[in-house]
Amino acid sequence: MSKLQFNITTSLDGYVAGPNQSLENPLGEGADHLHDWAVTTKFFRAIHGDTSGGETGINNDVLRQAFENIGATIMGRNMFGPVRGPWGKDAWNGWWGDNPPFHHPVFVLTHHEREPLSMKGGTTFFFVTDGAESALKQARQVAGGKDVMLGGGANVGQQYLAANLIDEIQIHLVPLLLGDGTRLFDNVDAQRVKLAPIRTVAGPDVTHLQYRFIK
Amino acid sequence: MSKLQFNITTSLDGYVAGPNQSLENPLGEGADHLHDWAVTTKFFRAIHGDTSGGETGINNDVLRQAFENIGATIMGRNMFGPVRGPWGKDAWNGWWGDNPPFHHPVFVLTHHEREPLSMKGGTTFFFVTDGAESALKQARQVAGGKDVMLGGGANVGQQYLAANLIDEIQIHLVPLLLGDGTRLFDNVDAQRVKLAPIRTVAGPDVTHLQYRFIK
Repeated sequence: MSKLQFNITTSLDGYVAGPNQSLENPLGEGADHLHDWAVTTKFFRAIHGDTSGGETGINNDVLRQAFENIGATIMGRNMFGPVRGPWGKDAWNGWWGDNPPFHHPVFVLTHHEREPLSMKGGTTFFFVTDGAESALKQARQVAGGKDVMLGGGANVGQQYLAANLIDEIQIHLVPLLLGDGTRLFDNVDAQRVKLAPIRTVAGPDVTHLQYRFIK
Repeated sequence: MSKLQFNITTSLDGYVAGPNQSLENPLGEGADHLHDWAVTTKFFRAIHGDTSGGETGINNDVLRQAFENIGATIMGRNMFGPVRGPWGKDAWNGWWGDNPPFHHPVFVLTHHEREPLSMKGGTTFFFVTDGAESALKQARQVAGGKDVMLGGGANVGQQYLAANLIDEIQIHLVPLLLGDGTRLFDNVDAQRVKLAPIRTVAGPDVTHLQYRFIK
């Protein structure tokens, strides 16, 4: 069966976002450089439509491999956009412009119904109002045998961790301390989680730690 | 100048000890297997007087290297023993028997004065009542140009982190979740800490992450 893969960047003290997340500061305070390792890569630039350069090497390879066999993505509403409450008339269509970098179905967890939204390049956003398990089921149905990517953010990641639905996690561990904010493993029943290492890859300024969940 | 090295094992969710530490359960609840990677090695057994076996390989090499150039050790009173308050008449002489595994001067941070305690094999315990900075100064004076090891536990580690006195840290990251307890990076001014990676070594069931503090 297709696996649910969770890729997430954390600080060395375990935070995925700093305190006081806001529209102006979606990653919270102090987390500006948390994703530098990814956004500077050639692969990240290319999927966001910038073919002008970017770093190749270990971090680029790890990121490319993470997206290699993905047929659908799940994300929380906060990752899809800053809009809260019911979807308005001029609804938000995501952070990514007309041609989002997914090129496959994306399931957005929300409390508010909305019709599917088809974008250029093969990305369609489906809005799921009946919870994490349903979103995963729907994503698997359309993933064509490929894996499903759990995109985040932290709250949705914790929901899937708590429900023991994740098959593999890759933590991109960055040597920064945030000191406050949202932790990856908050609200998770620690005793229930059993992990087995898959691989460790040391990239420049980030360590990529991949584990399998033993169920 | 000789460096202050901090070697510490943490769970994947950042804990160095579980909740409810006690005499019967010095590492707290749920942390029984946190140090398995170390205690099963040939090096660990050998320095504790057991020459009968133990695992060789990556974890053994990492542990041996960590102790290779150490001329003195600093530890907190809780790591030295379970005794609290003033030292009694039949004073506690450490967990390690007559011939402790250090074979060099060990500085124990305490609020209660006590005469130095000489053991077999070159280990002498000195009891320091005037704080972390003084202990480090004294340790460097007798380390013979070698590095000083900060042994822990968590509270003393946090004191040295907060005072920005550590030169290098090696975090032995174990794929366990504890969910509660004492975190390595609690009570540390995160904004002040700047780290540069030295190396990452993937051992069986543990990842060894070594960083330098940029001052």
